[in-house]
Amino acid sequence: MKLPGQQDFEGSDAHENVRSEELDSGLGPGSGLDGPSDIDHGESQVPKDPLLFIQLNELLGWPQALEWRETGRWLLFEEKLDIGAGRWSAPHVPVLALPSLQKLRSLLAEGIVLLDCQAQSLLELVEQVVSGESLSPELRGQLQALLLQRPQHHIQATGIRPCRGSNASRKASWDEDTPLKHQNPLRRKLPPGAEAAAVLAGELGFLEQPLGAFVRLRDPVVLESLTEVILPSRFFCLLLGPPTPGRSYHEMGRAAAVLLSDPQFQWSARRASNLHDLLAALDAFLQEVTALPPGRWDPTARIPPPKCLPSQHKRLPSKLQEVTSLSRRSAALAEDKRRRGPHAPIPELQRTGRLFGGLIQDVRRKACWYSSDFLDALHPQCFSAVFYIYLATVTNAITFGGLLGDATEGAQGVLESFLGTAVAGAAFCLMAGQPLTILSSTGPVLVFERLLFAFSRDYSLDYLPFRLWVGIWVATFCLALVATEASLLVRYFTRFTEEGFCALISLIFIYDAVGKMLNLIRANPIQRPGSPAYGCFCQYPGTGGNTSEWTSAKLKDTEDSVLGVRPGLVNASFLPPSECILQGGSPRGPSCHTAPDMAFFSLLLFFTSFLCAIVLKHVRNSRFFPSVVRKALSDFSSVLAILLGCGLDAFLGLATPKLLVPTEFKPTLPGRGWLVSPFGANPWWLSVAAALPALLLSILIFMDQQITAVILNRAEYRLRKGAGFHLDLFCVAILMLFTSALGLPWYVSATVISLAHMDSLRRESKACVPGEAPDFLGIREQRLTGLVVFVLTGVSIFLAPVLKFIPMPVLYGLFLYMGVAALSSIQFMKRVQLLLIPRKHQPDMLLLRHVPLSRVHLFTGTQLACLGLLWVIKSTPAAIVFPLMLLGLVAVRKALEWVFSPQELLWLDELMPEEEQNVPENRPEPEHLFRGNDSEDSELMYQPKAPEINISVN
Amino acid sequence: MKLPGQQDFEGSDAHENVRSEELDSGLGPGSGLDGPSDIDHGESQVPKDPLLFIQLNELLGWPQALEWRETGRWLLFEEKLDIGAGRWSAPHVPVLALPSLQKLRSLLAEGIVLLDCQAQSLLELVEQVVSGESLSPELRGQLQALLLQRPQHHIQATGIRPCRGSNASRKASWDEDTPLKHQNPLRRKLPPGAEAAAVLAGELGFLEQPLGAFVRLRDPVVLESLTEVILPSRFFCLLLGPPTPGRSYHEMGRAAAVLLSDPQFQWSARRASNLHDLLAALDAFLQEVTALPPGRWDPTARIPPPKCLPSQHKRLPSKLQEVTSLSRRSAALAEDKRRRGPHAPIPELQRTGRLFGGLIQDVRRKACWYSSDFLDALHPQCFSAVFYIYLATVTNAITFGGLLGDATEGAQGVLESFLGTAVAGAAFCLMAGQPLTILSSTGPVLVFERLLFAFSRDYSLDYLPFRLWVGIWVATFCLALVATEASLLVRYFTRFTEEGFCALISLIFIYDAVGKMLNLIRANPIQRPGSPAYGCFCQYPGTGGNTSEWTSAKLKDTEDSVLGVRPGLVNASFLPPSECILQGGSPRGPSCHTAPDMAFFSLLLFFTSFLCAIVLKHVRNSRFFPSVVRKALSDFSSVLAILLGCGLDAFLGLATPKLLVPTEFKPTLPGRGWLVSPFGANPWWLSVAAALPALLLSILIFMDQQITAVILNRAEYRLRKGAGFHLDLFCVAILMLFTSALGLPWYVSATVISLAHMDSLRRESKACVPGEAPDFLGIREQRLTGLVVFVLTGVSIFLAPVLKFIPMPVLYGLFLYMGVAALSSIQFMKRVQLLLIPRKHQPDMLLLRHVPLSRVHLFTGTQLACLGLLWVIKSTPAAIVFPLMLLGLVAVRKALEWVFSPQELLWLDELMPEEEQNVPENRPEPEHLFRGNDSEDSELMYQPKAPEINISVN
Repeated sequence: MKLPGQQDFEGSDAHENVRSEELDSGLGPGSGLDGPSDIDHGESQVPKDPLLFIQLNELLGWPQALEWRETGRWLLFEEKLDIGAGRWSAPHVPVLALPSLQKLRSLLAEGIVLLDCQAQSLLELVEQVVSGESLSPELRGQLQALLLQRPQHHIQATGIRPCRGSNASRKASWDEDTPLKHQNPLRRKLPPGAEAAAVLAGELGFLEQPLGAFVRLRDPVVLESLTEVILPSRFFCLLLGPPTPGRSYHEMGRAAAVLLSDPQFQWSARRASNLHDLLAALDAFLQEVTALPPGRWDPTARIPPPKCLPSQHKRLPSKLQEVTSLSRRSAALAEDKRRRGPHAPIPELQRTGRLFGGLIQDVRRKACWYSSDFLDALHPQCFSAVFYIYLATVTNAITFGGLLGDATEGAQGVLESFLGTAVAGAAFCLMAGQPLTILSSTGPVLVFERLLFAFSRDYSLDYLPFRLWVGIWVATFCLALVATEASLLVRYFTRFTEEGFCALISLIFIYDAVGKMLNLIRANPIQRPGSPAYGCFCQYPGTGGNTSEWTSAKLKDTEDSVLGVRPGLVNASFLPPSECILQGGSPRGPSCHTAPDMAFFSLLLFFTSFLCAIVLKHVRNSRFFPSVVRKALSDFSSVLAILLGCGLDAFLGLATPKLLVPTEFKPTLPGRGWLVSPFGANPWWLSVAAALPALLLSILIFMDQQITAVILNRAEYRLRKGAGFHLDLFCVAILMLFTSALGLPWYVSATVISLAHMDSLRRESKACVPGEAPDFLGIREQRLTGLVVFVLTGVSIFLAPVLKFIPMPVLYGLFLYMGVAALSSIQFMKRVQLLLIPRKHQPDMLLLRHVPLSRVHLFTGTQLACLGLLWVIKSTPAAIVFPLMLLGLVAVRKALEWVFSPQELLWLDELMPEEEQNVPENRPEPEHLFRGNDSEDSELMYQPKAPEINISVN
Repeated sequence: MKLPGQQDFEGSDAHENVRSEELDSGLGPGSGLDGPSDIDHGESQVPKDPLLFIQLNELLGWPQALEWRETGRWLLFEEKLDIGAGRWSAPHVPVLALPSLQKLRSLLAEGIVLLDCQAQSLLELVEQVVSGESLSPELRGQLQALLLQRPQHHIQATGIRPCRGSNASRKASWDEDTPLKHQNPLRRKLPPGAEAAAVLAGELGFLEQPLGAFVRLRDPVVLESLTEVILPSRFFCLLLGPPTPGRSYHEMGRAAAVLLSDPQFQWSARRASNLHDLLAALDAFLQEVTALPPGRWDPTARIPPPKCLPSQHKRLPSKLQEVTSLSRRSAALAEDKRRRGPHAPIPELQRTGRLFGGLIQDVRRKACWYSSDFLDALHPQCFSAVFYIYLATVTNAITFGGLLGDATEGAQGVLESFLGTAVAGAAFCLMAGQPLTILSSTGPVLVFERLLFAFSRDYSLDYLPFRLWVGIWVATFCLALVATEASLLVRYFTRFTEEGFCALISLIFIYDAVGKMLNLIRANPIQRPGSPAYGCFCQYPGTGGNTSEWTSAKLKDTEDSVLGVRPGLVNASFLPPSECILQGGSPRGPSCHTAPDMAFFSLLLFFTSFLCAIVLKHVRNSRFFPSVVRKALSDFSSVLAILLGCGLDAFLGLATPKLLVPTEFKPTLPGRGWLVSPFGANPWWLSVAAALPALLLSILIFMDQQITAVILNRAEYRLRKGAGFHLDLFCVAILMLFTSALGLPWYVSATVISLAHMDSLRRESKACVPGEAPDFLGIREQRLTGLVVFVLTGVSIFLAPVLKFIPMPVLYGLFLYMGVAALSSIQFMKRVQLLLIPRKHQPDMLLLRHVPLSRVHLFTGTQLACLGLLWVIKSTPAAIVFPLMLLGLVAVRKALEWVFSPQELLWLDELMPEEEQNVPENRPEPEHLFRGNDSEDSELMYQPKAPEINISVN
């Protein structure tokens, strides 16, 4: 049963055990699928089988009113016509009854098979088919007339939107020459060169024998209106017969259509030279069918398309791969697998062995792309990316600026945040190795700065000069790290380290947000009915009441009544304090300096902005609203949460604490110039002693910057212009000097916002057939969007007067949201949740299939213990050394090798460089011998690899 | 390919079109599956094939360390052993590769088939099998030794909990005689008489030929430790062969196990007399297999068991049905289908044509069950039911009492609510036709009472005497309705009416809850910094300050300053108002009678209790915590929300408005006795005029009572003791008189709490195999649980002192929750949501498959318009006539017949009695002719029929 040009499929299972390393042939950087400027790449490649649109026309209405009606269509998935509702079903995985496939086989075996038929029209085709049958001339005429009858199509004019990105690319050539595109929106989803296949099935009373025909046209022609989309038809399949119970011809028609929609059968059918080849292809299909036993599955349930199609890679021999219509997808998957995975070293992280060798290589690599870094930005998609990232950046600048100003008592405020973000970000975009990176204040640095400020306050140091020296030392250390190519060490930061890092910072965020709210409540206490007294009145000088009398009365009063403050005889009014002073009185009473309602209103604002941000973020996955609206709501969730909070605050007009913004363009801290003096009030030796905290900060900056860089340069983003780990760190070091000198916040690459930037620049295939996710083609790698974003941020400094309307509780709410979002994004939290889920209800996580639950819990427990230790250290006066402890996580992870097998670590974490050698080529001993699961070797590649770490908490 | 005793399956599709009416043979009331007192019914029925436990033992470790290891097990679904993780997978629908089934077939065809083997032990069995093979004596010995080797079982000692209800019934006989039950928790899930089947598969290097054997033991014997559960084995299947690529023997073993787990194959295999029968059964299985095409489905995905198994009813001819192990389930499904459905008339609703004929019949029907109504309650399950329903009833009494007292200014307060609930509920439980019904204050009656009170206040009527007359008239009208058997009209209340009713009441709830909160905020205004003044001080009489002076100063002051109130010269202190009065002073100032922070704190309490109730309600469906905990949290969500609110309030100690509770046992309204005087201050003719509102209330009570009764008596609850629609209404009428005379709230049957009552009394099969939901056997129908609940409620009147700690905002929050929960429970809201969901993302609702979207929207729009009209009427002074308008919904629904086809109405609503004749036996013309979906006739019966209407909003 071998197919022409195809290996024996029976033995294909043997391929499964080939591990991904063996496929890791040397695909260097830039040798991806596409050349540097081929934006619409991949569509121009040859040779490849065109996509097939398959339509089932069914003969209905026997015997009264015979007509052909379209009842199903197939591209990747099946769409059924729900006739009662007059709508196409959602695309779903087709399920067949096995007998219908077998009946189809026997019908084809006995029927007419015309391969390379030369018909030029439907009439010619029908004549050839009918003449092949052994029918009476009268019957032949009737049949011919019937086959030429125009079928009823169900064209859904509305509701099908062009898929993402296709608006922007409507200029595509294959769209131009079809004036019919307005009639059928499906046409727009089909790639150029698509062909059609028509399956005609039904029951015909005057037939005595079943009648089957399979035609392949040598040159595809448009067969009038046989199919709803005007496409040249390649295949034509006729299945007619006398009436039978159970609509078996409908099912046979579906079987034929499903067969044709299978890439492998299609490949064979296009190349079959006789009936035998065709039947062999059908048998090969049957060999690969998955069988669901009866009675355990509701066959009318429509299975939604899987998020990730199983790779055709595994099914098809390599020769086939290049040519089938699915080859792009499978090749991409294969390439992905080849480049990423725990075993794939990032090529930019190869040691050169020379001083600054990595930096020089980075500069060389990026230099040749420099002009294209600006030209590639000339695309309308970049506008929306700029708008989105600008808003995110400004929100970040406000939030972090507000919090940093709060924590450092104005040493860096919102104005510094805006200025620093703009200057540093723009400079980075112009110089960096990975210009898609968005520089930002990030959680770890914020935490460190807070500790540094507390330290300098405790020892009465002049903060900004001290901070300048820390910056100078950090820059020095970072340059040393660049020189020694230390970025290569990044491979020792496995998920264990990243998650510990992220969890600690997230917890600090959550703790701080709640702490700040509690402080706010303490400053505006809730007034209980039984508490001493509340209220404030305005006391006028003059008869019966002056300050001294009031004071003495009060002192006297406290002795005989704790509850009452007794001003004695006063001349009073109820003017509010500000009015009172204006009128020459003085406000008296315990509530003159606290505002009522403030505590609860702040709490309401806090929860409102937190919940609003969370809910809006999740709108993306809801069913409601068109996807454009959902995406906008989700993308701008933070901005909308701030706006809602401001609106609520403005509506009620309460005096909530607001964001501190200087009224003119000068540093937030009163009385300092822009340039920080190098010594200030500090002793000279402090400039040397600053090296110690600088060492800690360097570790932090290195970890934060490089982990983000590794995530951003992952192979699944298919970056063509390569990474620049050393160059990036170099830029960060230089900017460190600059921001320290001006007293601006410190900046490193921020993971989440950079990923959002990349995501908004995704290039995707325009044609996406129903049920299929658009193909990911790559990222518009350029420097312009980032640059424009930061220039706009700089301009936004003039927005400052508006910013003072933002209530602080809203920012605290967002802060809490960031912490919670970052915490819930890591796998560690999923494993912590496992501790609470009874075994029976645990989700079907892959790692649970491969690692005993107790081992999973042990690993999670270790992480929890590390986190607890970090938290304890963070709470002691030695808090400032916490970056060192983060580095300690690497050591703990190394020690875990003694507790866990490499196999377990592979599932629970990633492997460190040395460990990779310890994993046997195939499965390790016990699991190899007693493997319970056969085909699950391939599970890993079906898992969509999302960026899991949200390390920078921003 | 006919099986013995089996009809041709090819033609079985023809059965599908048999409509449910044709199956509606005269199954009278009480002629259900089980006799009156047979609690463990259904298990005693004969003859029936026992359940089969199938285990796959695989030969692993070739060539070094051969051992048998259990790698899979089957009951209804497959459980795989994940060897790496050392755990059983969750039960899932097994998927097979088609070739493995074919290979199995050929191996069986060539192998040994021993039917009715008389082996008494594993040794004998192995000897018989091995002797049948053509092997060398040496090989035979080796093989025999291997087969006798003890297999490794994976027994999961923990984590598998006995399924619901089995704790209570551990006395079951089949549990007693197995001392091994502590070793394997799976044993407990198997019904008595279960048998085992062992499949042994693997690759054996020294074999040259494949070796297959299928053995059926004549008398099942325990084959040592071949299976993990010690059960007598019926089948034994051996599949060995030389090593092949791709673990094909493992797959063949799985195929054999899946085959054996299929009830139909099993039935045939138990009765097969030769190899041919066996292969025919295998072929019949193949005919029914559902095929998933390759490449569109990830074969490693584990499909979770469907919520509702497709009925075996359709697959098996009736003769088979009685005997297979699944027969209970399928018979139950079939009976369900027979009795329910839009076409099935409820037998108790047949007209007798005599005055009070229905009532007399009801009394007769119930009288014979009266003693069993108390005896059947002697079951531990009833204790937990009492506890749960008691808490729900008390919560209801508090909430409704609090709100009613609020709305009627104490005419009915919490005390009346407790007393009325206890007396009316207990009396109803003793007399009613459906004693499972829980009487309660319900939304519609509450809304009406509010309007009635507003009306009587507007016209300065003496409320309680007026209300007494309304009650007397309502009782009269209801008795008239009983006499004329008007309950039969209940069939005209289709879902359209029910949903309109429910939506209106829910909206009123939501509107009222929010309105009451706003009132509360208005009473305690938020103090803005710019607002006139705040605070309160204590003014002492004496020098420089007395009331008249203060007043005049204030009057004078308002003219020259709106902002300030100027008491002038006063002798003041800051004592809180209460203290101030005690000390002989008088509180002065605008804030003396408002409390600060109250508005926002009330808002916080409101949202907290609302969110807490919603979140806890949803905990039931979460993965976290053991199911007992989840169920408790969900069941007691309202109680917990109240407790949380009270705790928060007590912690902060603010003077929020609290529930009004009399300090002693006397009516809440001051100055009235328990008995309401018949006229009071009203003119005599008002007793006649009261007939008008009474007419409206009668409509409301009739609708509310009867819709609840219909829902409660639905066939799917399998009530054996029959309904009593007329008797129930009679009881409600009598209780109406009683409660009106004492000035207690009015009561009707409440849907939700009654359903909860029934649910807590479900009888379920004790044995539930993994992946299977327990079989529903019926409800413990009795009067005792209800009676005890209401007696306890009566005793709880002494709890009153505790109730005064409940803050009103918490009750408003619960009120909002009830409205939201009721609103979201109706299908109408799902259709309203459809308006917002783009066509592409709409869920796969059955009605969308059958009715065009525009028609669905038209129907929804009509409902929205009706609701809008109702709302407008409710907002006018004519609000009190709204019950009449609800009745108008029936007319609107009737008019819809002109707009929608019966087919559409069948999907969108239900059919009215006359319409049922209009639906053709089969599908109506156009859809019948052009049906796009074949097997979807049966869709409806897979849909679990949950009580959709939450009409009573309680």
